[in-house]
Amino acid sequence: MQADHRARLREAASRLADVGGSALLVAPSSDLRYLIGYEPMPLERPTVLVIGAGGDVALVVPELERPLAEAAPAAEALDLVPWRDDEDPYALIASRAQGGGTVFVGDRIWGSHVLGLQRVLPGAAWARATSIVGAMRARKDDAELDALRRAAAAADAALGDLLSEPLAGRTEQAVAATLGDLLVAHGHDTADFMIVASGPNAASPHHVAADRVIRAGDGVVIDFGGSVEGYFSDTTRTVVVGDAGEPLRTVHAVVAEAQRAATAAVRPGVEIETIDKAARAVIDAAGFGDRFIHRTGHGIGLEVHEPPYAVTGDRTVLEPGMTFSVEPGIYLEGELGVRIEDIVAVTDDGVEPLNTRSRDLVVVD
Amino acid sequence: MQADHRARLREAASRLADVGGSALLVAPSSDLRYLIGYEPMPLERPTVLVIGAGGDVALVVPELERPLAEAAPAAEALDLVPWRDDEDPYALIASRAQGGGTVFVGDRIWGSHVLGLQRVLPGAAWARATSIVGAMRARKDDAELDALRRAAAAADAALGDLLSEPLAGRTEQAVAATLGDLLVAHGHDTADFMIVASGPNAASPHHVAADRVIRAGDGVVIDFGGSVEGYFSDTTRTVVVGDAGEPLRTVHAVVAEAQRAATAAVRPGVEIETIDKAARAVIDAAGFGDRFIHRTGHGIGLEVHEPPYAVTGDRTVLEPGMTFSVEPGIYLEGELGVRIEDIVAVTDDGVEPLNTRSRDLVVVD
Repeated sequence: MQADHRARLREAASRLADVGGSALLVAPSSDLRYLIGYEPMPLERPTVLVIGAGGDVALVVPELERPLAEAAPAAEALDLVPWRDDEDPYALIASRAQGGGTVFVGDRIWGSHVLGLQRVLPGAAWARATSIVGAMRARKDDAELDALRRAAAAADAALGDLLSEPLAGRTEQAVAATLGDLLVAHGHDTADFMIVASGPNAASPHHVAADRVIRAGDGVVIDFGGSVEGYFSDTTRTVVVGDAGEPLRTVHAVVAEAQRAATAAVRPGVEIETIDKAARAVIDAAGFGDRFIHRTGHGIGLEVHEPPYAVTGDRTVLEPGMTFSVEPGIYLEGELGVRIEDIVAVTDDGVEPLNTRSRDLVVVD
Repeated sequence: MQADHRARLREAASRLADVGGSALLVAPSSDLRYLIGYEPMPLERPTVLVIGAGGDVALVVPELERPLAEAAPAAEALDLVPWRDDEDPYALIASRAQGGGTVFVGDRIWGSHVLGLQRVLPGAAWARATSIVGAMRARKDDAELDALRRAAAAADAALGDLLSEPLAGRTEQAVAATLGDLLVAHGHDTADFMIVASGPNAASPHHVAADRVIRAGDGVVIDFGGSVEGYFSDTTRTVVVGDAGEPLRTVHAVVAEAQRAATAAVRPGVEIETIDKAARAVIDAAGFGDRFIHRTGHGIGLEVHEPPYAVTGDRTVLEPGMTFSVEPGIYLEGELGVRIEDIVAVTDDGVEPLNTRSRDLVVVD
């Protein structure tokens, strides 16, 4: 994917100026990749992109990584400022970040670097760059949407293959490993997470696939994803091995209805917290409100979780091109869990679910 | 490896009290693993260990990861404090971190979380936890030293296998892939980095293995490592394909002498920056001082790079059990690079190199 890094840098500087900021500081992270196509490993030696409100852009890099930075896609659009191990990189960054306004920093910069920068810029006010770079990244362009669509379609196909073979008698770990292989076989560059949570393990939303053997009667939450050209898939289905008993059948029906209602609420102009409210209303009405123990969704793109969030308090107004998960769940401790998740994109007048597999309760062997 | 997490938590609280701190805050990172044996994925939802100077310990966790945290090795030694997605986690953390002194934060906590905490603790002073947890981690116990020895021996064996086959005619990427497989075959749990930098590429210390085909006359820097039970290997040798010409032969001899001199300077009671000076003196005298563009070494353990650092300005006094790399290098842009690296441990009266392969220039096919 050929991104227009110069345009992104210009927009970031313009947004920075609009909010009266003096500098935007971005460390190795998806933000850095988005802005200049370069993402070295984050280390104790800071690499920091410094964007000034006037549009000047510098990349402060450790001397020993200068050759890597020179090869960055956007290298010609910025000043490379190398520092050596016996110099103070924070002073160097600060010398480019002055001007009296607020300094905005990317979310994932290490805390040690924030404290190092605060030491040399003692008078500055500090704020998260989410309102600048996060807002830019939230609205995907056509190429980004295309990558997300392909990732979602590949994830759907991988799950289809997985469920064509029996789950019973296999460990969660074995099923997770197969699923990772299938993601790659269907075109993912990386397979990043494969939650396979069976029976009572499904009550733990971030369960790590374990050596539990899946057996008849189990509900199994399968929540998985990876990346295609840097853009992530993330989808969840809950299936049942053999006949579904109660309360699995009822709980699944409630979650499916909540997921449908939340998806139906997606359209430009509404605040994203209303998507959360739509899911919660269904689950509350069914009497499971206190067992829906997480938000309804998260933005997705170069990161699996990124702004905006479908949660109480996030008043981000949906715009065409925004992409996020819709994934209500109900968790009964010691017993079962159900979650259903699609990635959706906001369109000009509504919603496009990128995942298209049935959300009905699927019975597998 | 069974670590005594309770003892580590007690020591951290005691060191915190000694420096008049009010709280020590540790996010998912090697610090957290070291202290409580738990290291979930760092996310936008903060998980933070809060240690008070009085010895009280709380782990603030997202509600949906509570089941994971309950299974942590040190779970019984701490208060689990879950928060839900519609609550403010920073306020919850702050309520446990009051007392008026300095708040110490682990290096790798996300900047967004530091800013979130500073918002709710506006009067606090902030400092890096390196002086507390970093100092504890720097001095390895016997079990940690044993893991580091096994990692180093396995890395040496992997390199021996690699060099028993020709390099000429293969791409850097292919050689790197083979090396990764060999690390795992020799007992590594993970193979994390395999720098294979041939000919002029070797002038870039953090070169990413590329599609360049290695050929006769190339110097090749091979810098690689991975983990055994969470503890890292990291070693470098520079080899030559066929006969070594000049200046490779001379440069290699200078780096080898610098590496020998620096290693010989390691003993308890000296400041670690003297190790850097010992290497630099040799390279300066040979006229290559401005081509030695990085520090001489870094601590190693649960992270590849961790305190202390063999660099001007790090006055850490060496103690038995400290482990770090000794890795001088010389880089001639557009031409070649040479680096030689061992991991060494400080003993009661001197030094134990954990890597034992010859540092002479090895000729390979």
